Amino acid sequence: METCTCHIPVDTGFEVPPKASRMLSPENTLVNIRGVQVGGPEIIVMAGPCAIENSEQIAETAIAVKSAGAKILRGGAFKPRSSPYKFQGLGEEGLQMLSYISRKNGIPFVTEVMDTRQVELLSGYADMLQVGSRNMQNFPLLKEVGMCRKPVLLKRGMMSTIEEFLLAAEYILVQGNDQVILCERGIRTFETATRNTLDLNAVPMLKQLTHLPVVVDPSHGTGVKSIIPAMAKAAIAAGADGLIMEVHYKPEEALCDGQQSLNPHEFNEMMVDLRKVAAAVDRFIV
Amino acid sequence: METCTCHIPVDTGFEVPPKASRMLSPENTLVNIRGVQVGGPEIIVMAGPCAIENSEQIAETAIAVKSAGAKILRGGAFKPRSSPYKFQGLGEEGLQMLSYISRKNGIPFVTEVMDTRQVELLSGYADMLQVGSRNMQNFPLLKEVGMCRKPVLLKRGMMSTIEEFLLAAEYILVQGNDQVILCERGIRTFETATRNTLDLNAVPMLKQLTHLPVVVDPSHGTGVKSIIPAMAKAAIAAGADGLIMEVHYKPEEALCDGQQSLNPHEFNEMMVDLRKVAAAVDRFIV
Amino acid sequence: METCTCHIPVDTGFEVPPKASRMLSPENTLVNIRGVQVGGPEIIVMAGPCAIENSEQIAETAIAVKSAGAKILRGGAFKPRSSPYKFQGLGEEGLQMLSYISRKNGIPFVTEVMDTRQVELLSGYADMLQVGSRNMQNFPLLKEVGMCRKPVLLKRGMMSTIEEFLLAAEYILVQGNDQVILCERGIRTFETATRNTLDLNAVPMLKQLTHLPVVVDPSHGTGVKSIIPAMAKAAIAAGADGLIMEVHYKPEEALCDGQQSLNPHEFNEMMVDLRKVAAAVDRFIV
Amino acid sequence: METCTCHIPVDTGFEVPPKASRMLSPENTLVNIRGVQVGGPEIIVMAGPCAIENSEQIAETAIAVKSAGAKILRGGAFKPRSSPYKFQGLGEEGLQMLSYISRKNGIPFVTEVMDTRQVELLSGYADMLQVGSRNMQNFPLLKEVGMCRKPVLLKRGMMSTIEEFLLAAEYILVQGNDQVILCERGIRTFETATRNTLDLNAVPMLKQLTHLPVVVDPSHGTGVKSIIPAMAKAAIAAGADGLIMEVHYKPEEALCDGQQSLNPHEFNEMMVDLRKVAAAVDRFIV
Repeated sequence: METCTCHIPVDTGFEVPPKASRMLSPENTLVNIRGVQVGGPEIIVMAGPCAIENSEQIAETAIAVKSAGAKILRGGAFKPRSSPYKFQGLGEEGLQMLSYISRKNGIPFVTEVMDTRQVELLSGYADMLQVGSRNMQNFPLLKEVGMCRKPVLLKRGMMSTIEEFLLAAEYILVQGNDQVILCERGIRTFETATRNTLDLNAVPMLKQLTHLPVVVDPSHGTGVKSIIPAMAKAAIAAGADGLIMEVHYKPEEALCDGQQSLNPHEFNEMMVDLRKVAAAVDRFIV
Repeated sequence: METCTCHIPVDTGFEVPPKASRMLSPENTLVNIRGVQVGGPEIIVMAGPCAIENSEQIAETAIAVKSAGAKILRGGAFKPRSSPYKFQGLGEEGLQMLSYISRKNGIPFVTEVMDTRQVELLSGYADMLQVGSRNMQNFPLLKEVGMCRKPVLLKRGMMSTIEEFLLAAEYILVQGNDQVILCERGIRTFETATRNTLDLNAVPMLKQLTHLPVVVDPSHGTGVKSIIPAMAKAAIAAGADGLIMEVHYKPEEALCDGQQSLNPHEFNEMMVDLRKVAAAVDRFIV
Repeated sequence: METCTCHIPVDTGFEVPPKASRMLSPENTLVNIRGVQVGGPEIIVMAGPCAIENSEQIAETAIAVKSAGAKILRGGAFKPRSSPYKFQGLGEEGLQMLSYISRKNGIPFVTEVMDTRQVELLSGYADMLQVGSRNMQNFPLLKEVGMCRKPVLLKRGMMSTIEEFLLAAEYILVQGNDQVILCERGIRTFETATRNTLDLNAVPMLKQLTHLPVVVDPSHGTGVKSIIPAMAKAAIAAGADGLIMEVHYKPEEALCDGQQSLNPHEFNEMMVDLRKVAAAVDRFIV
Repeated sequence: METCTCHIPVDTGFEVPPKASRMLSPENTLVNIRGVQVGGPEIIVMAGPCAIENSEQIAETAIAVKSAGAKILRGGAFKPRSSPYKFQGLGEEGLQMLSYISRKNGIPFVTEVMDTRQVELLSGYADMLQVGSRNMQNFPLLKEVGMCRKPVLLKRGMMSTIEEFLLAAEYILVQGNDQVILCERGIRTFETATRNTLDLNAVPMLKQLTHLPVVVDPSHGTGVKSIIPAMAKAAIAAGADGLIMEVHYKPEEALCDGQQSLNPHEFNEMMVDLRKVAAAVDRFIV
């Protein structure tokens, strides 16, 4: 496994906040999600649908992604949607489905929390809480997940700098919760051929600046299904500790993000290729 | 006063959501903040410090901005700050100071709400609630301010398109609260000489697409004190219904945003010039 | 007329190059285009079609814009087009038409030069040479127009910072040609409702940093006809010394940029409004 | 070697121009640079200094990069620099040095052309002509290199879309020169911790849309030495056909881009790692 070999501090033009800083804590932080460790030599793949739609969908997808090698199930019960008229998620009902399937199949799950008032509810079900892009600077929410004792997957804001990303993590860390995973998920640029521009520069940069694990979301980072496998490989080659991606058992029927969801067969094929790239950078995927 | 004269709908490439749409509701919405009307021929200036620091500061600033012609006082009690180590605002104590000074001087005030759990508390004090840039897509918060019966100042996200901005307003409108003011406050671009790029294109574009009032924040939109007066004039010329800006009685001692705060003398000078520009576009400032 | 009143140098994070710097040369540079002066109290409007298409089109448009108050005619003979399959301009034939109409109607003209090898040819015809956005960092071209003795209209690159813009001007100035006008024409951002984001912040910023005149192109800066008049007003209020805009006698038949071209009637109406805004900032349009 | 497996055309929202289109010409174009083939299964690394400074520098660097596995030497004789006061390159003298060292060491070289008037001169020396970022939409230059019979390395503009990039290549292709390599070199975004944002999404996207080879420049794409090796690996994993990067025998003494130049030892170490990643995606580096 590759460790940080930069002896000279990188000149980024800003100061890394103390609790996130690798200068002050050189050892990699290992984040433990019900037994699955992120930040060590193993590359962890998290997969599942954008939103939970019904029990068949989540059950079928969970079985498929686990058998292909995913270690964590993802799925949204409360969905942040640009428009109030779009499907907003199944809410607590979805959470119960997800929890049931997760336990039944022995695969921990991560789901998004959007509201300070939901943190307690979601903590009772989920193995890891996701703070989404649009909430990266929702400071009361960061404090609240910092006070709960669940691992947190913090997604980079789509127009947030690396400095702001580290400061957002610091909001969680200062509350005493050190189980934080950073997720690069694409930033907003002038390019319109892809949904976002996946900023893989941020991966080695973050790995040098902080001891926290860094994962990549090539689904949102591209928005284009046909380039997701290539970008997943690139993320691993760049030094990511894991991936989070959208897989749906029937993408063409998905209620959200169908155009960026792999089907189980495509996901499985990609995983075969990812193992080879992982090995080439002295990592592994089981 | 200039009304929308576009007979042919603008081709923006997206559909304006129904409650925000000027096509469906051609008449300007008037937002009433304790007797001050935004969206009519008068241009309303809102001014005050970034954060409330102590009672002298807010008292002095309130008197100064009111006498120069500001109709609404602004000031933050709960402050969203990039770093957890920076001044986070005085909280409810600040709110009480602000409320006292506002009543004493007969000038309504607007203050920022960041947390769904605070909406009730702040509604008890404030005349208008501000949803800040970083929370433009905090959907639970949008719903919550939509359910309360206070006017809402919705700031555009620094990474948000005009379409997303209108959809965020729609989240409030669908809850039955039609007292929404849109605020352009600068977007994030590659340019580093200014803090943000004030997108004045958004002003006439929004005025054509929606019946909601549009105001501009030249303080955050530039981050550079010396160009604020020029950009305030430009905002009015572009068709804005009002301005919101940072004024501090001693900018050099401000706990936040001192570099973009005018002092009372500079504010007063600017107001004199703004009245001339307002008249040139058939509007007025009292 | 407004002069620069900033006594404390603006902190932009970069050093203004010496020949462009207002610190070193506080007086406004006046650029003289065959008798028309840009940079003084009068606001100069330059107008005409995107491309010269035929003699009727340029003749009709020239008469219309002059009678509405434009002082300089614009029109492209050599056109930079994204695609090799789009209309590339009439070349020297177009230049001859433009020159004939310009002389006949007593209105100087500006036209774009794209190639170092064309500078001599175009200098023989044009009253001012335009270096377009895509060529702002075409350094051999900047040197070549610096060596010729014609005024130069330098458009900001759509991806260029204010610092780079000033450095590009410096390339011309160091060759001994001080007749340089800077033109803000919109920058590229994530926003897609408008063609570009007109960065009016750049206007007062440039006016403080440099003695060169600054004009604004609201046609390219918006790409949306219905908001051009509002943004033209805003540009003047922000302190611009002039405007350059696309006017076509029949926009619906234009070979390029029809969607952002005003017709003569719309242009004339706008000019009436611009005079009022100019007066409000102590400038004038004849 | 990976071939394009997308059976359903990618929905990018634009039409790929005909000569560049993979739909119309499915086979990979092979570009031949004096015997070195780009676009086949071998991944080609091009390396050398930003600018040629003196004969020792270029000689030492050429020997070092060749022995580490680079197949093409890069070096600038005519340098596009933001400021007229910065080192502008040695001009034809530098070209002669580069040419001599290239022949002596049996390694072809690529160098940048900035001016239509230089194309003939440079064609007499160079094995491949580079059109730099700032000239991606310098259409007369594109036509001129299209008419000469040398391979062309076309760098993406730092704020150019993938569509514009393909259209720029089309300008060369329509002149009858099909020896064009596309180079992703980072785009301009709001992020300031890195010099540019390397848009690796563009690599698999371009490979699907066009038959032309695609290479990546991680030096300009990051501007930060310590993350270059990680991003070089990522580029190969994403499907790039080659790399172009800055190597200097004494980076700390470089006249330009020292902060993003590897020294020969670092370059050699990186090449060892790149061979492993290449193998993992069924490619190879000799």
